[in-house]
Amino acid sequence: MNSFNFKTYLTSNIALDNDSIDDLMLHCKQQQIYKGDFLLRQGEKCKHSFFVESGLLKQYTIDEKGKEHIIQFAPEKWFISDRESVYFDNPSNYFIQAIEDTKVFVLDELFFQELSLSHPNFLDYNNRLLHNHIRHLQKRITQLLSATAEQRYLDFIQVYPDISLRVPQTMIASYLGITPESLSRVRKELAQQFQK
Amino acid sequence: MNSFNFKTYLTSNIALDNDSIDDLMLHCKQQQIYKGDFLLRQGEKCKHSFFVESGLLKQYTIDEKGKEHIIQFAPEKWFISDRESVYFDNPSNYFIQAIEDTKVFVLDELFFQELSLSHPNFLDYNNRLLHNHIRHLQKRITQLLSATAEQRYLDFIQVYPDISLRVPQTMIASYLGITPESLSRVRKELAQQFQK
Repeated sequence: MNSFNFKTYLTSNIALDNDSIDDLMLHCKQQQIYKGDFLLRQGEKCKHSFFVESGLLKQYTIDEKGKEHIIQFAPEKWFISDRESVYFDNPSNYFIQAIEDTKVFVLDELFFQELSLSHPNFLDYNNRLLHNHIRHLQKRITQLLSATAEQRYLDFIQVYPDISLRVPQTMIASYLGITPESLSRVRKELAQQFQK
Repeated sequence: MNSFNFKTYLTSNIALDNDSIDDLMLHCKQQQIYKGDFLLRQGEKCKHSFFVESGLLKQYTIDEKGKEHIIQFAPEKWFISDRESVYFDNPSNYFIQAIEDTKVFVLDELFFQELSLSHPNFLDYNNRLLHNHIRHLQKRITQLLSATAEQRYLDFIQVYPDISLRVPQTMIASYLGITPESLSRVRKELAQQFQK
């Protein structure tokens, strides 16, 4: 399984000196959780962002009929959080749960804000994270409105290259907003195309 | 028709002194566009954010089959932009077009950034705008994945109280990701419920 050291990730992604990175590390804590464990439950206020060092998380909501809808997967090197709940201090609509045993870095939101004020480089980085998140959400809306099941699946395997091997097909169908039967049909059709 | 003065809006929403507001106004320009005019076309790079003083805009994408999918409406007091395109300097996937004659304030993104650095109050405000945008997008994804046509419509009239009187039903159906027939059925059912 891949594993990414958060400090290495920060060093290569933010133009901060070593002292600042060390300062930053003091305000984060590493946490080991196990398959099935929750980092957030619907109705709770989300207080943190999580960076996945190893393992796999899912963020999902449950509708009135008890059906699960997956909003996001977070494999290695991904951040996951309910930024709305953190920022507006609202109860979250989402669960964040481990699909595999997972090692995360837990980041305090207050620290994000303080570091943004003291380090313009970090401000840029945080700004980039927010815009990247907006890009991702915007693309997902466009897809849910306009893309065929095949287009959605092709995009999915581009965004998450190895996840289709790590989770049950029902979870992928839930993420794509299609039935497991449609997903199965799409996969069969694509396999036939690649064989030609 | 309602109309909102941008300066009044800023004064009541950002804790900035009058001089700073006047500085800000120097970097914006007002623009009058007419029904059917475009502020952005698919493939162009989006360079601005727009604040609607009066009128109504829609942001939409067109799929492979030529079908229009509305991502957002922007009536009075709303901001609209393709933040992804502005920030990452990517060609946009969206059109922004006037549904009614519209008066907008055109805001330069560079100015947003510079003002964020010089005025912490504005930084907070911009940060709030970004998080509000994320909240809105996140809610929309959850709805597209999990809400019934009726729930989507009820939420729509809460977010956009007067738009259902200002646009054709086909546009609302496009925004909700349902067929015009489903929308018509939902409206009929709701009307019957309210009559009881």
